[in-house]
Amino acid sequence: MRHLGLILLGLIPVQAVLAQEWAALPDVPPIPAGNPQTTAKVELGKQLFFDPRFSSTGTVSCNSCHNLMAGGEDSRTTSMGVHGLAGPRNAPTVWNSAFHSVQFWDGRAASLEEQAKGPVVAQVEMGMRSLDDAISRVRRIPGYAAQFKQVFGGENPVTVDNAARAVAAFERTLITPGSAYDRFSAGDQTAMDEQQKRGMKRFNELGCTGCHHPPAFTGPWLPGGFFVTFPFHDSPYVTKYQLREDKGREAVTGDPGDKHKYRVPTLRNVALTAPYFHNGSVPTLNEAVQVMAASQLATKLTVEEAADIAAFLNALTGPFPIMTLPRLPPTPGETVVPPQ
Amino acid sequence: MRHLGLILLGLIPVQAVLAQEWAALPDVPPIPAGNPQTTAKVELGKQLFFDPRFSSTGTVSCNSCHNLMAGGEDSRTTSMGVHGLAGPRNAPTVWNSAFHSVQFWDGRAASLEEQAKGPVVAQVEMGMRSLDDAISRVRRIPGYAAQFKQVFGGENPVTVDNAARAVAAFERTLITPGSAYDRFSAGDQTAMDEQQKRGMKRFNELGCTGCHHPPAFTGPWLPGGFFVTFPFHDSPYVTKYQLREDKGREAVTGDPGDKHKYRVPTLRNVALTAPYFHNGSVPTLNEAVQVMAASQLATKLTVEEAADIAAFLNALTGPFPIMTLPRLPPTPGETVVPPQ
Repeated sequence: MRHLGLILLGLIPVQAVLAQEWAALPDVPPIPAGNPQTTAKVELGKQLFFDPRFSSTGTVSCNSCHNLMAGGEDSRTTSMGVHGLAGPRNAPTVWNSAFHSVQFWDGRAASLEEQAKGPVVAQVEMGMRSLDDAISRVRRIPGYAAQFKQVFGGENPVTVDNAARAVAAFERTLITPGSAYDRFSAGDQTAMDEQQKRGMKRFNELGCTGCHHPPAFTGPWLPGGFFVTFPFHDSPYVTKYQLREDKGREAVTGDPGDKHKYRVPTLRNVALTAPYFHNGSVPTLNEAVQVMAASQLATKLTVEEAADIAAFLNALTGPFPIMTLPRLPPTPGETVVPPQ
Repeated sequence: MRHLGLILLGLIPVQAVLAQEWAALPDVPPIPAGNPQTTAKVELGKQLFFDPRFSSTGTVSCNSCHNLMAGGEDSRTTSMGVHGLAGPRNAPTVWNSAFHSVQFWDGRAASLEEQAKGPVVAQVEMGMRSLDDAISRVRRIPGYAAQFKQVFGGENPVTVDNAARAVAAFERTLITPGSAYDRFSAGDQTAMDEQQKRGMKRFNELGCTGCHHPPAFTGPWLPGGFFVTFPFHDSPYVTKYQLREDKGREAVTGDPGDKHKYRVPTLRNVALTAPYFHNGSVPTLNEAVQVMAASQLATKLTVEEAADIAAFLNALTGPFPIMTLPRLPPTPGETVVPPQ
């Protein structure tokens, strides 16, 4: 399909390709049958997402590394959690993460629900000793207990799984249809400028869409995930940016065939997520475009071509939903964060 | 005045006292002539307040320790800044800080404008090497440069002083009139319950208002600040909670007469700011009430009296203004947070 695309695109204009292969981002992402969206569940998930009290120090929330006031990440090389500890990987954006079939750079979580539990007990992220410790803090907060009861019902609704369901439901609202690209692909020829159109054409000609598939510019939705070796080709960038220090998916599966394999991340809002790649080693988007061309396509772009493609990638930015700052339910007269 | 209040309150009902001495919180705090409020300035200040990119690690914003989703503080004993470093003091709430004539526990800043600069370069808070380093990051962000130009005008509007002015202007919107106490003091007899009314009467009888002055329940507005020795009387609490480890204002002035002196903090939203006191050593509001009675008034309260006063203090909570989550201006394709 990628190679077919490559051949075809030399012959037919972008508009014709658009009609066939390109599409605007849907207004709703895939919703799993086991976790239907409700307004109350989304609101609960939003509060949990922003609440730092479920980290060991009381200082780190989901939003700390996935900042919804910005690109859904933290502007850092690799993320920094409790006690100033930093992990080995760059925070992926939470915006449009609902369009990924698997989560984390190495795809080790099969859903947003599963993903949501990981950082809570990662010692370099939220640093809780156990998920039980975290949920016992949630349970002590009356305003949360009441909401879990309302949203999930039952005798003991404040559970780790329900908390993860609420956070995942909130994350499924964090999508950004209506970008310049979306408006262009829906027929508004003025939504992208000439440089962005050139970049889009070149992006297509190079075959980038073979992995970064419209409309979300992720890998295709496969239940087990869609993984690609990065870097695939040798280039000076491999050493310069230490691109093969990380084993990638091999560290999860133990399968040498998974060495340096990663889930294909969305390019939506990629202009807001510098620095780039799994280790955050590449500082700018233009350089990241060059690294991808060299590493995945054995191609050297001109400065102008890279700038054109970066301009197109900027057309995948936002708009972002306007949301109110949540109020976190209190524990009047005391705190659930232990003395330290 | 305090002693007169004590004598009078034995004789006349709370309502009569209310009419004379108690008042509801104004809708607007004192605004300095040199920094008038404008909508654009407040919006700019809000973005700066929430933006973590002006800390050395890119992880700490004003909101990290003064969380506007909660009680305007961080639920911690003492605050934690970059690299997991913790300072010696508990974060005062930013809610209604505009009603304080001086800022910080020791009153070392004469205004919110002056206060706003301190944490940026405190090595255990935001950890920047200099204010120049911080403002040079702001200057690199086009969306900020444009707003500074609009708000302040002039050739070089992106300055530390203007950033502080914007943050202070935003903070002057962070006030919470309309609490149960405010509605009660405005004549709604049903706004507080019987326990809260008993607590209010006892609070007054004890003379708490001598220092925690309505309507903001701060010290009186004196340009140089109003300072009180804490703890004033000996009690077992002094050792238990290490209340005299900190020199208080003496550390600022070098004057032994300022030993253990502190600015009187507002009691607005105090139910949401556990743990308590300058070192955050006291875990609950009921215990904090007992500590104050013993330390400042040489009084031992019954369990019921302390609970009544704590109930009254809960009547000083909120409501909180609904605000939108800010969007932080981007630097597309790069980040101002250095690699680390």
